[in-house]
Amino acid sequence: MHLSADSDISKWELLSSKYLYRHKYLTVRSDHVRLPNKFEIEDFFVIENPDWVNVVAITEDGLLVMERQYRHGLDIIEYEICAGMIDKGEMPIEAAQRELLEETGYSGGQWIGYGKSSPNPSSMSNINYSFLAKGARLTSKQRLEQTENIEVLLMSIDEVKQLMLQDEITEGIMLAPLWRYIVENELMNK
Amino acid sequence: MHLSADSDISKWELLSSKYLYRHKYLTVRSDHVRLPNKFEIEDFFVIENPDWVNVVAITEDGLLVMERQYRHGLDIIEYEICAGMIDKGEMPIEAAQRELLEETGYSGGQWIGYGKSSPNPSSMSNINYSFLAKGARLTSKQRLEQTENIEVLLMSIDEVKQLMLQDEITEGIMLAPLWRYIVENELMNK
Repeated sequence: MHLSADSDISKWELLSSKYLYRHKYLTVRSDHVRLPNKFEIEDFFVIENPDWVNVVAITEDGLLVMERQYRHGLDIIEYEICAGMIDKGEMPIEAAQRELLEETGYSGGQWIGYGKSSPNPSSMSNINYSFLAKGARLTSKQRLEQTENIEVLLMSIDEVKQLMLQDEITEGIMLAPLWRYIVENELMNK
Repeated sequence: MHLSADSDISKWELLSSKYLYRHKYLTVRSDHVRLPNKFEIEDFFVIENPDWVNVVAITEDGLLVMERQYRHGLDIIEYEICAGMIDKGEMPIEAAQRELLEETGYSGGQWIGYGKSSPNPSSMSNINYSFLAKGARLTSKQRLEQTENIEVLLMSIDEVKQLMLQDEITEGIMLAPLWRYIVENELMNK
């Protein structure tokens, strides 16, 4: 049911675009745009990042492969699922399988796409690809980068749900596939 | 169950901090940090933003108050829930009630906190406060800002669930409270 009778949603017109900052870890673009109502914004900032992946990984025993690590933006130690950047030339699923193996030592099982999401569609240009991996097994040791310090934990669905309800998992693009998995799980047990 | 026996997750040490860019709509901080393994990162970037709010608003008939608008970062027109920035001096719930009224004309009902989340805990410092508003009513006209062009739609839970499964709602911090509402709804109907 549409409530705004005169709705006319269309894209903004891009008048010009320049890079404000280009660094290995931060690229900021500044766009001069014209809105449908002719209003112009001279410096609409867009943060460009590589696309990301994350994985809801379930062991053969039905436990979730969770992580705990420090996140400097929020300055907190929090619970997460495995996540990372897609390397150049990689398919999203390849990146997700590589990251799960590197960060947790788990691999294998049945993998399905589990939604595309965005950290911030207004001012970030990258997409996050989520995956569900069912029946993953511990097949190797963790192989972390110098900047990574990740604790790996196996948790039941109920434990993860409690963490989410207590705001101990905060990243929106991780909460989305986790809640989605809980919906499917609740439905299965109906 | 802990898998990493030698886990020692601690915070990074902040050695120095400077602002790379300060603008009304973009603030970038660059931190020189030392990790627990003594590895140093000289320019870890953090995007500072005001805190945000969003609202899962349910009408007295059980429909969700949804929005459709253009998002320049992803360059797409997509479905969303009501969201906005917290103004200086505002409580999160005040900001959420103000934004719902301004963007959709809906107000009232029973409001509860519905989780805190983050667009990106690694490199963004702001928090998003979600709310669930049950029994909201159309009490005024939309009052949009010059930069806003928002279509308001009422949708059933099943319609919203389909949009999420089809990746037509992308923002992670919006997907989280929407999936959470669907979990509660599925449980209620068990």
